[in-house]
Amino acid sequence: MSKATAILLIACQDQKGLVARVAGFIHEYGGNILDSDHHTDQETGDFLMRTVFDLTGFQLARADIDDAFRPLAKIHDMHVQWYFADQKPKVGMLVSQHDHCLADVLQRYRRGELAIEIPVIISNHQTAAWWADLFHIPFHYFPVTPETKPQQEEQILSILREQQVDLVLLARYMQIVSEGFLDHVGCPVINIHHSFLPAFIGAKPYHQAYDRGVKIIGATAHYATPELDEGPIIAQDVVRVGHRDTVKDLIRKGRDLEELVFSRAIRLHIERRVLVYGRKTVVFD
Amino acid sequence: MSKATAILLIACQDQKGLVARVAGFIHEYGGNILDSDHHTDQETGDFLMRTVFDLTGFQLARADIDDAFRPLAKIHDMHVQWYFADQKPKVGMLVSQHDHCLADVLQRYRRGELAIEIPVIISNHQTAAWWADLFHIPFHYFPVTPETKPQQEEQILSILREQQVDLVLLARYMQIVSEGFLDHVGCPVINIHHSFLPAFIGAKPYHQAYDRGVKIIGATAHYATPELDEGPIIAQDVVRVGHRDTVKDLIRKGRDLEELVFSRAIRLHIERRVLVYGRKTVVFD
Amino acid sequence: MSKATAILLIACQDQKGLVARVAGFIHEYGGNILDSDHHTDQETGDFLMRTVFDLTGFQLARADIDDAFRPLAKIHDMHVQWYFADQKPKVGMLVSQHDHCLADVLQRYRRGELAIEIPVIISNHQTAAWWADLFHIPFHYFPVTPETKPQQEEQILSILREQQVDLVLLARYMQIVSEGFLDHVGCPVINIHHSFLPAFIGAKPYHQAYDRGVKIIGATAHYATPELDEGPIIAQDVVRVGHRDTVKDLIRKGRDLEELVFSRAIRLHIERRVLVYGRKTVVFD
Amino acid sequence: MSKATAILLIACQDQKGLVARVAGFIHEYGGNILDSDHHTDQETGDFLMRTVFDLTGFQLARADIDDAFRPLAKIHDMHVQWYFADQKPKVGMLVSQHDHCLADVLQRYRRGELAIEIPVIISNHQTAAWWADLFHIPFHYFPVTPETKPQQEEQILSILREQQVDLVLLARYMQIVSEGFLDHVGCPVINIHHSFLPAFIGAKPYHQAYDRGVKIIGATAHYATPELDEGPIIAQDVVRVGHRDTVKDLIRKGRDLEELVFSRAIRLHIERRVLVYGRKTVVFD
Repeated sequence: MSKATAILLIACQDQKGLVARVAGFIHEYGGNILDSDHHTDQETGDFLMRTVFDLTGFQLARADIDDAFRPLAKIHDMHVQWYFADQKPKVGMLVSQHDHCLADVLQRYRRGELAIEIPVIISNHQTAAWWADLFHIPFHYFPVTPETKPQQEEQILSILREQQVDLVLLARYMQIVSEGFLDHVGCPVINIHHSFLPAFIGAKPYHQAYDRGVKIIGATAHYATPELDEGPIIAQDVVRVGHRDTVKDLIRKGRDLEELVFSRAIRLHIERRVLVYGRKTVVFD
Repeated sequence: MSKATAILLIACQDQKGLVARVAGFIHEYGGNILDSDHHTDQETGDFLMRTVFDLTGFQLARADIDDAFRPLAKIHDMHVQWYFADQKPKVGMLVSQHDHCLADVLQRYRRGELAIEIPVIISNHQTAAWWADLFHIPFHYFPVTPETKPQQEEQILSILREQQVDLVLLARYMQIVSEGFLDHVGCPVINIHHSFLPAFIGAKPYHQAYDRGVKIIGATAHYATPELDEGPIIAQDVVRVGHRDTVKDLIRKGRDLEELVFSRAIRLHIERRVLVYGRKTVVFD
Repeated sequence: MSKATAILLIACQDQKGLVARVAGFIHEYGGNILDSDHHTDQETGDFLMRTVFDLTGFQLARADIDDAFRPLAKIHDMHVQWYFADQKPKVGMLVSQHDHCLADVLQRYRRGELAIEIPVIISNHQTAAWWADLFHIPFHYFPVTPETKPQQEEQILSILREQQVDLVLLARYMQIVSEGFLDHVGCPVINIHHSFLPAFIGAKPYHQAYDRGVKIIGATAHYATPELDEGPIIAQDVVRVGHRDTVKDLIRKGRDLEELVFSRAIRLHIERRVLVYGRKTVVFD
Repeated sequence: MSKATAILLIACQDQKGLVARVAGFIHEYGGNILDSDHHTDQETGDFLMRTVFDLTGFQLARADIDDAFRPLAKIHDMHVQWYFADQKPKVGMLVSQHDHCLADVLQRYRRGELAIEIPVIISNHQTAAWWADLFHIPFHYFPVTPETKPQQEEQILSILREQQVDLVLLARYMQIVSEGFLDHVGCPVINIHHSFLPAFIGAKPYHQAYDRGVKIIGATAHYATPELDEGPIIAQDVVRVGHRDTVKDLIRKGRDLEELVFSRAIRLHIERRVLVYGRKTVVFD
């Protein structure tokens, strides 16, 4: 995607003429639509739209676009978000000693696959320090016990705010973040859960899967919400397992899956392809 | 999809304002866009668009829509096609003694999955007569030898024309249809090839796959063109095989795959989700 | 698989020399092992084995094999089952008005894919009568209400017993069979559940999946046990869904999946590739 | 797998009593079979077997096993290989500037997923030096031009021999290794090809796939042979692509696939699960 592009996300109730009016607005000021997708939920009447347009020759300055669009947004009672493809989101990463998802994100970041900045890595283990060093990213170590959790969350929040992160990634953080944390973090939080949700919610999903004797295991990336493992799902994938696979094999196979699903969800999010409505997502890919 | 909907397919060179103008046209006459998707090939500059809109309250009669749209089409040098979701395409089926894809299409037709009419089944074997009888569809038997092929193709063409079919399905017909046939049939022809094209072009692909020792086999549905197995691909899928699988097992596993891929391609085609450009397809699903 | 083959299934506690002794027994009487597989659960110490051997030149008559093997079985406290590949299991099918899995099994039966006999089809709806007629299979209609269920189950049991079925297939039967039914049916019962178990247990799994916003749906074939949807899993598969898919689309996509998973499980069962232990299966494929 | 286990691979013509005799040999000396699998190609009569047994309590010293087994091997004209699970194969890695497969193998090596030693990394680019440094692995840089290729291959061969490597990995080496190299390297060579072979043999397979408009792309790990991309296939996998995917997207999606398929093939090889016969493999997984 070329750098000088704008991404417009709209959510509102379905009404006649929405596509025409939005496309008309962009055309009026000389923008060229590169990609446009929308979805109407026939049951709820929710209308969700994502439009990408070329800013070359667009007659409005970036700072003025939202103002110019406001009258239209008001008429249709739209919830509107504007993004620009050349602005890299700042991502704060939280990780445990299970560092493979962190490592995978860093590899993709290194080879330019993910257009993000990573100002901070935070962990309750020292393991991730090696990776942070390697990529010259500030690292913070906050060991967590049931007693210290509230204070530690406060500290973590304060660092994330200080770095003005746009997105928090729970890269196998293995700690349940509190409702208060989610209330105050001020940006979306993406979690990777190591099962095919809603199967095997909670702790040790690979052990649960092994005990149940399933023939397929999965991984799920979702936005974190106060209800554990109940947030809107962004991406899921699966892999076959058999009776020869021990729990250790499930964990090994699952690692590959977690990396793939997590990075896919991150990519979808940072390309602004995901719109949440209710407890579900629309993914324009 | 509700019955009273129109589907508009457009192909032209990319230009500014196309989406706005098309959406504007529909809005102007009171149509409500239900679904809209487009694709610009950045290399070739091809612009391809599919728009579905509700005809309830639309102020133009069906017969007048194309005329009303013509000026816009002319300005942008568009190739335009109009369809209406309540018009069922007439499908002519050609089949050999391998009747599983025929049987599968008939099942889906029977339970209302495929919005088509099937005025005729044609075969070079008697096997399919059983199915035709069961579903009360006229059946024609044209055994083909190298000598009789040209005359038989003439007869088949004449029946298809008489029935005014909109689509021909080669449901494992196992005969190479001639360039002349394709020139004169006057509608798209979809073929199901029992390999993951472009691997294993031509005859006996499962035997070829077995000999090569591949770990995955596939099936490919594509529009038939004069170049054998080289037409634009609509749908593909694969399944794992192993050293325990004999050629007979590949054929068995492949049958399921052929049915799935063929019916998926038919569905995509009749919902007008497939646009051909060059030797490729854009599939808006 | 050639007709004159024997299949030996063994379950016991792991001990040294089991493979050698079993292979030795077969060799001693002139049998040639065609296929042999075993699995030891390292946690529980369960040893499970499947051996297929050629009966050509085998010096024991079929009727004498079990007796000859008994001393060995006793020493190692083995649970032993003998099958012969040329004996087709008799299958009783139970089905509701959702007849696609029935239709699919009948197609495979017709083209010789499944080496079974189907002496009876039983349904609580008249829909399946059409299929039974077509394939000349006796059909019994037992409408079920909460009040009549116990008597109807009695009748069904009596027919299944009369037909001496070796396997009961719940081909989307949509009725919970009672614990008493399972106690008295006297053969394995395979059910197809239209979700990726253990996600979405119980009624209307596609609606549940739609509401949760999952990105993948599944189907699960398992042995029926008194605990609803908790029986040992034989086969599972999945398919991708997206926000454009309505519940109706999930149902349509799910049908294909149910057919594939159900027929795969039936094939595995009748080829005696499935051994149950605890609430899990070992599948030697 | 516990450390003190032996792996026995056998290839010969099928004969009666092979399984019994091999199992009998192991039992005779007090070994306990943990896993055993075999395959008979019904067309060619090839018999291929893999047996893993516990050495605890085995009455033969490792050095004496082969001798003790020789008489049996001679009678049946077996090709026999013995491995011990605690002996880590020495792997020489050849890589180009496309270092993702190297990076992936190193990650798996680091977290103990692959039981190998990596005494040397060789590249025709400097890129991989960063990785070699990080993991403290000796690195050799041999830029290759058409003129210098023969000498460079000589040097590479001499290093590989000096390090006594058991396996060479072409981790996207992007150079065709000569027939002479393969003749003299003295160990198996595994290559990862970035297409679903036999589709898109040779250079730039992702560009070929894009031009053909396929809906699925793949990756193939195979043993290198003098015929380019024609060696016995060990593992393959695929991923869906669509019209929105540019060549760059295919390359990105393909990277994940290459890593997964390559590491799967390496794991299968080092666990001695792969037997080559003719131009095919038997994979006992």
